[in-house]
Amino acid sequence: MAGLDAVHVTLVYHEDYDEFLLETKKWQKLFKENSDLIFLGRDFKDIDKAKSEKKTAIFFGFQNCSPIEDDIKLVEKIHDLGCRFMQLTYNNQSLLATGCYEKNDSGVTNFGREVIKEMNRVGIVVDMSHSAEKSTFDAIDISEKPIAITHANPLFWHPAKRNKSNDLLKALSENDGMLGLSLYPHHLKNNTDCTLESFCEMVAKTAEIMNVKNIGIGSDLCLRQPDSIVEWMRNGTWSKSRNYGEGSKNKPGFPKQPNWFEDARGFSNIENGLKKIGFSEIEIDGILGNNWYNFYKNI
Amino acid sequence: MAGLDAVHVTLVYHEDYDEFLLETKKWQKLFKENSDLIFLGRDFKDIDKAKSEKKTAIFFGFQNCSPIEDDIKLVEKIHDLGCRFMQLTYNNQSLLATGCYEKNDSGVTNFGREVIKEMNRVGIVVDMSHSAEKSTFDAIDISEKPIAITHANPLFWHPAKRNKSNDLLKALSENDGMLGLSLYPHHLKNNTDCTLESFCEMVAKTAEIMNVKNIGIGSDLCLRQPDSIVEWMRNGTWSKSRNYGEGSKNKPGFPKQPNWFEDARGFSNIENGLKKIGFSEIEIDGILGNNWYNFYKNI
Repeated sequence: MAGLDAVHVTLVYHEDYDEFLLETKKWQKLFKENSDLIFLGRDFKDIDKAKSEKKTAIFFGFQNCSPIEDDIKLVEKIHDLGCRFMQLTYNNQSLLATGCYEKNDSGVTNFGREVIKEMNRVGIVVDMSHSAEKSTFDAIDISEKPIAITHANPLFWHPAKRNKSNDLLKALSENDGMLGLSLYPHHLKNNTDCTLESFCEMVAKTAEIMNVKNIGIGSDLCLRQPDSIVEWMRNGTWSKSRNYGEGSKNKPGFPKQPNWFEDARGFSNIENGLKKIGFSEIEIDGILGNNWYNFYKNI
Repeated sequence: MAGLDAVHVTLVYHEDYDEFLLETKKWQKLFKENSDLIFLGRDFKDIDKAKSEKKTAIFFGFQNCSPIEDDIKLVEKIHDLGCRFMQLTYNNQSLLATGCYEKNDSGVTNFGREVIKEMNRVGIVVDMSHSAEKSTFDAIDISEKPIAITHANPLFWHPAKRNKSNDLLKALSENDGMLGLSLYPHHLKNNTDCTLESFCEMVAKTAEIMNVKNIGIGSDLCLRQPDSIVEWMRNGTWSKSRNYGEGSKNKPGFPKQPNWFEDARGFSNIENGLKKIGFSEIEIDGILGNNWYNFYKNI
């Protein structure tokens, strides 16, 4: 085990409210059967609790807003059921905002403005990892609480559609929002062949744009999952033709992780790499976990 | 009775697929209990059948795409259940396109392009009555079959958010699409006090922009319905605060119809008005029904 106190797990890509309910039931069973290892995280104190009890607190996150359907009242209900992070959109246009795979970006919608207000009220973090640029600027602007980009990298380092511009990272940091740096090969320079050194150089450059306390890791790890999962992520039910997202017809499945981050044990490699490039111990502890802890504590 | 051979009725404003199923059941009961008067219209031949049997064919239309949710396969299913017209969006942003009440308009989305293709294939008319301008241009462009704006008026006559620009009406007509002129007071010059003469002048001017065979009536009539219906139309479940749409806090309900079009019998007043302003009999028969018949026959 990597000894993580808290993990953000994805419950939703395209599921509606009823399908989300089924997912929560599977997790309730897992919590019951593995109560010596994991439990449902509800607020930052559960991270402390996990540390002291040597367990891992599982925080539910949604990659999409599909479970709230078109009903503002469902925001409170998903919070009651454990949701603590929700993306306003997953690649395509949602009812709330525009995804990064659309041609045009109209920003946060009428319904989106209402939902952000409600997420602020009940305590769900607005996550814009898969959103388009104007929508993300809008969300930073509209949200009364800092937002998060839980898993994406800077565009200056690697030109993936999901990676973010310097202006956006600056605005995020100025509003005390968090960036979780991704370790998903499609977001890395040279993909699977990305070196630890290149990754750590990128972190150092990002720390020139953003306050270092607003930088964390959002590994985007998907281990031991069949390719059908990545197919579901990319295609949902919205198209009759097949979409490959950041992959391609020849590489339709999960890409191989770089050898220095094959699973959560890779955190110690990053720790060494960040030390080498000149980050202080406090900064490294921040990037590897404490920054997320403090962000979440203040929300 | 006004002696209409065919009527387009609204089954959906914000309903999802299951809620739409419930609506169809109510209609199945109505068809059974009133089989001497009405039946479900499935194609243009049912309009002929209605004429010869002195009945009215009821064609199902959706004001919103909510029943297909995020699932391309539901397009065929709603067609099987009788849907023949579907708006891509109702005022707010949908998963398919932008509504006329949004601040920005990003046009038809990725999912929207797939859905238009599928609507073309199964035979559902794309309706852009409540959509924003760029989205409507996109729909005209993407759809391989002519589209419709079933109920709206030209912007040059009355500046309602729902009314359409000359450029848009021109593009619609050039692609053989239909405009259904609305008789909903909020779309009329001087609202309830709109005169028949002013309405018919507007029709004459519109016929200078569009081919007269692409102009029809889309009355938008809502008779003997409680104000709770217009509240549902405007608010759905997307907001905790109340929206008044084209009304206002002081005028929250249905506005009063102009005295020359209080119900479907008003068609004979329009007939006289159009005659007076110089339309030929063939043109008038077209505007009052035959144009819709021919449009639908060719689709």
